[in-house]
Amino acid sequence: MNFKVKKSEILFRGKVFNLKVDEIQYNSGNASVREVVVHPGGAVIVPITDEGKIIMVKQFRYPFQKELLELPAGKLEDSEDPFDCALRELEEETGYKSGDVEKLGKIYTAPGYSSEVLHIFSAKNLKPGNLNREEGEDGMQVFEYPLNEIERKILSGEIVDGKSICGIYLFKNKLFNN
Amino acid sequence: MNFKVKKSEILFRGKVFNLKVDEIQYNSGNASVREVVVHPGGAVIVPITDEGKIIMVKQFRYPFQKELLELPAGKLEDSEDPFDCALRELEEETGYKSGDVEKLGKIYTAPGYSSEVLHIFSAKNLKPGNLNREEGEDGMQVFEYPLNEIERKILSGEIVDGKSICGIYLFKNKLFNN
Repeated sequence: MNFKVKKSEILFRGKVFNLKVDEIQYNSGNASVREVVVHPGGAVIVPITDEGKIIMVKQFRYPFQKELLELPAGKLEDSEDPFDCALRELEEETGYKSGDVEKLGKIYTAPGYSSEVLHIFSAKNLKPGNLNREEGEDGMQVFEYPLNEIERKILSGEIVDGKSICGIYLFKNKLFNN
Repeated sequence: MNFKVKKSEILFRGKVFNLKVDEIQYNSGNASVREVVVHPGGAVIVPITDEGKIIMVKQFRYPFQKELLELPAGKLEDSEDPFDCALRELEEETGYKSGDVEKLGKIYTAPGYSSEVLHIFSAKNLKPGNLNREEGEDGMQVFEYPLNEIERKILSGEIVDGKSICGIYLFKNKLFNN
């Protein structure tokens, strides 16, 4: 590394993330700052029905003030294990439990400024469970699509959520083709 | 929408992003907050050499305190057009100009809490230009890989950057297979 951290401060503590701002000094003597969204991370689920369809959810996303079609996902609670988070979010958002969860990989969503890591899982052998949505998730809708229809929606720009595209990529290359 | 915005405030104005915190009230009467990283957006480039290899860069990422292998990318400056941003970042980070840039799509990197939109382009017909890196990018290294090696690195977990996985997905399905 070609720098030293001169000062590190949490400027904001939020419900979803904290904001950390560090002052650094390069070996050259020049100063700079680094702004970091400190995020707990989360889990993304690719739920696969017995018919081979993939379950997605459509929900209102505040930063864009519109609904987006995404794979089910959510933040880790406290020191929750990503595997437990995946099972919890799957049931809360889609109403399904799964008896067959497999890790597909992980992604860094915005490594330039956010510490968020999302762990991606497939979930098969789905059984009815209990929906449990937060008030802001009231209007969430659940859809089932075959893989080729999801890929068409990615290529047409109807699906633009990064974690969902990564989840579909990993599912297709790790499970679907094997 | 099932809520009203009661108060909206920019709590932090940064070099890379601003932080906006809104207080909302659901129609039920309950209150909540929404924390939003307000980000200018950027461009991601899939640079393809005349031999069909893809150029990637390895750089130190502060939030993770380690080097990551990614497609070249960068933030929009002021009201910069994403196309111009792609050409600029390609040359600054890899030293190549391109005479053949094509839009592949766009992604939302973290739509739960960030307004960041990344526009993804392919770049062919590469010619030598001028490197122009910021001080924090001093140690950036440039690599060329065939597509199948990049896909192997994604599936093995060596490449975890979300925008890069999305860029490779769009390149493979829109250009490589056609």
